[in-house]
Amino acid sequence: MFAVFGIRAGETASSPPDGNASPIYGVVLPADYRNWQVVSVAHEAGSLNDLRVILGNDVAMKAFRDHTLPFPDGSIIARIAWKYEASARNDAIFGRQQSFVAGDPTNVQISVKDSKRYAASGGWGYGQFENGKANPGRPLMQTCFACHTKLPAADDFVFTTYSP
Amino acid sequence: MFAVFGIRAGETASSPPDGNASPIYGVVLPADYRNWQVVSVAHEAGSLNDLRVILGNDVAMKAFRDHTLPFPDGSIIARIAWKYEASARNDAIFGRQQSFVAGDPTNVQISVKDSKRYAASGGWGYGQFENGKANPGRPLMQTCFACHTKLPAADDFVFTTYSP
Repeated sequence: MFAVFGIRAGETASSPPDGNASPIYGVVLPADYRNWQVVSVAHEAGSLNDLRVILGNDVAMKAFRDHTLPFPDGSIIARIAWKYEASARNDAIFGRQQSFVAGDPTNVQISVKDSKRYAASGGWGYGQFENGKANPGRPLMQTCFACHTKLPAADDFVFTTYSP
Repeated sequence: MFAVFGIRAGETASSPPDGNASPIYGVVLPADYRNWQVVSVAHEAGSLNDLRVILGNDVAMKAFRDHTLPFPDGSIIARIAWKYEASARNDAIFGRQQSFVAGDPTNVQISVKDSKRYAASGGWGYGQFENGKANPGRPLMQTCFACHTKLPAADDFVFTTYSP
């Protein structure tokens, strides 16, 4: 019951006037996320086939750098992904096939730490955004914590660590 | 003669007290580069086998976003690279081999735009840093512009474009 109540309260409390908040969690796209500092990078192959960068707001960056776990409330993590594309131009210059670069953006995922509001999902609220708009799929949102919760509890449900 | 003079002047003018500047160009590692905003990401396979992020200082970021070419003097671009490593932990959670993450850092490359000081190399000075120290190899530094100059002149010798 708590989970259902918390979820509905989240959607009501923080949806902006244009309704551009994630289902279940009511997470919005932070206005300045693209300017945040870098936590790390990754390549997800397979069906995702993207290059991605993980950014953090100031609260999250301090926690990443100080190895503070669990993350304090107010931490926000942004994951931006782009299509993984071979660069024919670069390969021609390098004389070999080796260069893969960021193509079109795919989506942005936002994780917000609020240990009270999101108590039912380990303290994290989630959202996915395409072209700046929240993906409206509730089933998609249900996959977020279902996957993050598979991480060791000591990681506070966060996949990425800071790359110096 | 101009190139040789310009190079020697560069080394003398900007080498910090500890001598931690690049050969030929006298480029130093900016104190705050790790906090800069993201231009884009890439994966270089082959012998490099790294994941990399390209960052810019404020002058460079404005130029990237505004598509200003050539880049204005004062632009600095930082390329950080880490070993490209499969994540057994992530793959176990995802149920398939797909996740490649940043391992140990390899090196940081810095490009500084100064159209007068670096007139002999298209307006760009270069440096490579390992563990915060300038790589002292002159032959390595000679490869920088030799490769960047293979790009179309309209690109102002810069490989990366901004990924929104």
